[in-house]
Amino acid sequence: MIVIMRTAVSQETIDQVANEIRKLGYEPRPAPGKTRTVIGVIGPKPLHGKQHLLTLLGVEDVLEISSPYKLASRDWQATDSIVKVGESVEVGGNRVTLIGGPCSVESYEQTLAVAQAVKAAGGHILRGGAYKPRTSPYSFQGMGPEGLEILQAVSSEVGIPTVTEAVDTETLDLVSSHTDMLQIGTRNMQNYSLLKAVGQTRKPVILKRGMAATVKETLLAAEYILNEGNEWVVICERGVRTFADHTRNTLDVSAIPAFQKETHLPVIVDPSHAAGKRDKVLPLALAGVAAGAQGVMVEIHPDPRTAKSDGPQQLLPDEFADLLERVRMVARAVGRELA
Amino acid sequence: MIVIMRTAVSQETIDQVANEIRKLGYEPRPAPGKTRTVIGVIGPKPLHGKQHLLTLLGVEDVLEISSPYKLASRDWQATDSIVKVGESVEVGGNRVTLIGGPCSVESYEQTLAVAQAVKAAGGHILRGGAYKPRTSPYSFQGMGPEGLEILQAVSSEVGIPTVTEAVDTETLDLVSSHTDMLQIGTRNMQNYSLLKAVGQTRKPVILKRGMAATVKETLLAAEYILNEGNEWVVICERGVRTFADHTRNTLDVSAIPAFQKETHLPVIVDPSHAAGKRDKVLPLALAGVAAGAQGVMVEIHPDPRTAKSDGPQQLLPDEFADLLERVRMVARAVGRELA
Amino acid sequence: MIVIMRTAVSQETIDQVANEIRKLGYEPRPAPGKTRTVIGVIGPKPLHGKQHLLTLLGVEDVLEISSPYKLASRDWQATDSIVKVGESVEVGGNRVTLIGGPCSVESYEQTLAVAQAVKAAGGHILRGGAYKPRTSPYSFQGMGPEGLEILQAVSSEVGIPTVTEAVDTETLDLVSSHTDMLQIGTRNMQNYSLLKAVGQTRKPVILKRGMAATVKETLLAAEYILNEGNEWVVICERGVRTFADHTRNTLDVSAIPAFQKETHLPVIVDPSHAAGKRDKVLPLALAGVAAGAQGVMVEIHPDPRTAKSDGPQQLLPDEFADLLERVRMVARAVGRELA
Amino acid sequence: MIVIMRTAVSQETIDQVANEIRKLGYEPRPAPGKTRTVIGVIGPKPLHGKQHLLTLLGVEDVLEISSPYKLASRDWQATDSIVKVGESVEVGGNRVTLIGGPCSVESYEQTLAVAQAVKAAGGHILRGGAYKPRTSPYSFQGMGPEGLEILQAVSSEVGIPTVTEAVDTETLDLVSSHTDMLQIGTRNMQNYSLLKAVGQTRKPVILKRGMAATVKETLLAAEYILNEGNEWVVICERGVRTFADHTRNTLDVSAIPAFQKETHLPVIVDPSHAAGKRDKVLPLALAGVAAGAQGVMVEIHPDPRTAKSDGPQQLLPDEFADLLERVRMVARAVGRELA
Repeated sequence: MIVIMRTAVSQETIDQVANEIRKLGYEPRPAPGKTRTVIGVIGPKPLHGKQHLLTLLGVEDVLEISSPYKLASRDWQATDSIVKVGESVEVGGNRVTLIGGPCSVESYEQTLAVAQAVKAAGGHILRGGAYKPRTSPYSFQGMGPEGLEILQAVSSEVGIPTVTEAVDTETLDLVSSHTDMLQIGTRNMQNYSLLKAVGQTRKPVILKRGMAATVKETLLAAEYILNEGNEWVVICERGVRTFADHTRNTLDVSAIPAFQKETHLPVIVDPSHAAGKRDKVLPLALAGVAAGAQGVMVEIHPDPRTAKSDGPQQLLPDEFADLLERVRMVARAVGRELA
Repeated sequence: MIVIMRTAVSQETIDQVANEIRKLGYEPRPAPGKTRTVIGVIGPKPLHGKQHLLTLLGVEDVLEISSPYKLASRDWQATDSIVKVGESVEVGGNRVTLIGGPCSVESYEQTLAVAQAVKAAGGHILRGGAYKPRTSPYSFQGMGPEGLEILQAVSSEVGIPTVTEAVDTETLDLVSSHTDMLQIGTRNMQNYSLLKAVGQTRKPVILKRGMAATVKETLLAAEYILNEGNEWVVICERGVRTFADHTRNTLDVSAIPAFQKETHLPVIVDPSHAAGKRDKVLPLALAGVAAGAQGVMVEIHPDPRTAKSDGPQQLLPDEFADLLERVRMVARAVGRELA
Repeated sequence: MIVIMRTAVSQETIDQVANEIRKLGYEPRPAPGKTRTVIGVIGPKPLHGKQHLLTLLGVEDVLEISSPYKLASRDWQATDSIVKVGESVEVGGNRVTLIGGPCSVESYEQTLAVAQAVKAAGGHILRGGAYKPRTSPYSFQGMGPEGLEILQAVSSEVGIPTVTEAVDTETLDLVSSHTDMLQIGTRNMQNYSLLKAVGQTRKPVILKRGMAATVKETLLAAEYILNEGNEWVVICERGVRTFADHTRNTLDVSAIPAFQKETHLPVIVDPSHAAGKRDKVLPLALAGVAAGAQGVMVEIHPDPRTAKSDGPQQLLPDEFADLLERVRMVARAVGRELA
Repeated sequence: MIVIMRTAVSQETIDQVANEIRKLGYEPRPAPGKTRTVIGVIGPKPLHGKQHLLTLLGVEDVLEISSPYKLASRDWQATDSIVKVGESVEVGGNRVTLIGGPCSVESYEQTLAVAQAVKAAGGHILRGGAYKPRTSPYSFQGMGPEGLEILQAVSSEVGIPTVTEAVDTETLDLVSSHTDMLQIGTRNMQNYSLLKAVGQTRKPVILKRGMAATVKETLLAAEYILNEGNEWVVICERGVRTFADHTRNTLDVSAIPAFQKETHLPVIVDPSHAAGKRDKVLPLALAGVAAGAQGVMVEIHPDPRTAKSDGPQQLLPDEFADLLERVRMVARAVGRELA
């Protein structure tokens, strides 16, 4: 940390701030300048006390120069983490992993049809929601336990691991026992009680970036999970809120290399929720992979017109197969291979 | 709802869409234009099926012209709701209610000192966090049950009702039994499991707008609570995420009249979290009241330098008393009175 | 400036960076930390060379701790600037100045009616556009020279100074010779050729913050004008682009105290363009004044239904008179008086 | 257009609005609903009068369902425009065109070195700024006329066409006579005087999307140029302002297919200005091409450490050659070829 003092403060004020820095257990290194003094704060990370220093007399600003997360950082682990899902699928490193499935599990037949299509096309993981966080209380909220049963049955029938969303701690055990991988949705990215509970499972988990979360805040959310002992976190970029109104959210592809510079955790992309419309899913998926994403998660439905949620953005099974082939070509251009 | 057809689609396609509208239980009213047809969708609200219609062949867009919330709307209740907190405090209508207290409950002495200052200055409700949702797992997470005990003891000692944050369903009963009013924080605005659980209590609740939530999404979050039978919801504007970097969040004062046009629920403003720094709290509080806010919630600490959270933005007790007097003057200018 | 070195760089690399700092004419002050070194850069402001230092081997980031503007800063002039408009109106200091008038000058009668209403209500400056920057080339582009003639004639008839927008350097002389004060619109805030040309006039000028400009960028735009010798700049907050869709732009009231902390220039607010709709103009005007604005500029039309531009947001003359009285009350609450 | 009436307005009010629609030259088609009436507005596009209708008694909102631009739209020209630059380069259709060069022209040697590198690597157009719009008046403002001379000399020496920025109407003729293609920068996207003047030349022009401009506003800016008779407009996505702080601007790759759906004009991507740092330029360039960009414009400098502007984001010549080869592979994955 660096403490920026206001211009024209007395030496006494500077000494007081230096003293407070010492009380926090750090070493102050004042550097007097022409118009103001800055004080370096030396100590073991993660550094705390920024808020406290900001309240002191004469302090203009306090800048953090070390990352506030530890277990998620490249300093902690320089090489890419590989997250194992089910028996045989791996996410991370040079692989590009394809995750597909319906927004909501709606029936055994629908889920089976999609799972078979994902598998046949060469996809790796089946997604499907049983508990759905919906903006309106009047929208379909998911099939719940029955949806979980269907997902598990289809997974075993088709031989493909699954990922599904956990929405609260009450249902976490049930969800956890029916799936190979958990998902934390964008609205729950800072639901810390849920993050801690997921951290106490040993299931791999996809953590979606919040709609208005910075790279730093997203990695701090991952840190909540890692800090409880669950190392298997995959970060997912899914679009952020901006003024732009031509898509539902603005897919921030630059976040992919930004995450990868900071963290060893795998980073995947969800183009479906950013796009909002089917015709934007393919270009955004390819853009994500071109920017370095280590996986792509898309929504697929055998008949989007009858979908109970997010119909407009779900791909047809054939469109998924086409997407997978194009992803393969783009992955090669950036030195990656399909998992 | 209005369905906008693409240009140059056949009459058959239009008829198919009209048919789907009928299947959803509504009446289609096609209006052919020069380049395209639009179809009015007539029916009882809340209308569903927008997602479905968007997936149909020939459909360009589907516009909602009715509000998707019902119980929160002025159509449901034209006059302002008055929310009663504790024995004697009321929020809503022409009143401006002042809520003050520490970010975190840190000790009996600290909480008592602030509560007495709030009461003495003419404030109405004491705030104080026992469970703190923090961006970093390494930050102070609140005193928990002990903090709740302190809050309750101080409330009874000073004779002032309290509001405190509920962060998950596990601790909701405990929190609920120790306070007069609940708060849902900005990070949990779309934590629907928590919203439903709070809806099943009969405690009044402050619902903070999410950092990137629209007015519509915020009212839909309120609808989750109302829909479970809890009518006592107060909406709180606390700043949104934008590119602007001179405050922690951008206080969106225009949301106050925007909410009030749509809903009968009281709307208050939290300038502390938007400001991030103490010297911006007063101007933002006054701006909120000038824009029509029916209450102001600010953070106060007897010694911000020792605060365990959010020190830089907490007012001194004397600053709160000054703020209250200025709020009184601005309230009069907009035809309101202090509660 | 402070140069943040990457972790684990050699002493040689640090020395090279220190050397480059010396070549730029500054003095380097390295402060070695536990994991990385930071180097203070000492020198006379405004400091340049940030871009250069960022390209050097081993440099992680370069932080500016001094403001990059000079003439606009409180360091240059601690006390508030007072900008004189016409013979007798002053903007700045403790005054709140009211500026009203039609979006576009449309006819002598329309402009006269509004000017008389502004004057009668106690307003100070008449606004009116003769050249209109419009998003679409098919929209009304203003009356041009004829509009300027009308504005000047009405000004002299009613005895009220005027402000009107300058849109390019070609017409600047003409515009300048017909008005008491110039305006730079939000779309031209970074039109540096225009800023320099306006800086070479000695007319007072309202500089509107760009739709996506930070406080710093806005003050640097002001610096372009000041640097050419024109000291009479008034900053205007008029709303910024965000995801929020309930108003045309999000009025950033917190920018008002943020500007005032940094600069001695007067800061006014334009609620009309942020609101987009008439019913939001009053609450936003009052919010701006409550936050400390030293002036309010609103659009007024005798018959908004016939307005050639921005009809929905223009106030009726009576509404302006009401607004002015309420502004008076709010101004008092924050220790200001109507000019 | 569609006029949405408020709930519960009288038939008389509806008739008055219908009458106003007729006065504007359109045909009203009222469609009464359960709670409110909507009125279709039928007529030849581009429709005007939205603003007027919004001011009428009883009108809640007015929705535009046709695009407000005409010449830029796919309705006007369904097939992709091909823009010819210099003797032999074409932009648009299935080609991906590579544009590279220094941020600023700084000397004959520097410009020549980069031009030769661009040509050798297989790039198509040389970029280089002679007039530089800079945020601060104290930053290097470009070499001006001398820079134009250098650019032209190098172009002729190396045999590569050039593009350079026009910043105002005064210097437009001079700029125009020294280059093959003009550029309008992001800060001037809504400088309508400049757009009109550029429209009166017959030079091809790159129009950069404004930092906070929607797709619609960008195409309306293009319409200003097209409307003056200059058909050779290329749209450039270069990042927008958001809350995200890990890059200078957030590259909005979804805008590329969004533009291409609406317009026949070519759409290219500028990853350098979005990235702000060299290590993000490659992933963003590839992401842009994967999303369908018909060209890539990047900044190159033989020695970024000595660059007079934007050093941190300029590629080395070798990095450009590598980028071009990877662009070739990604282009193939999306069915395009290098020009």
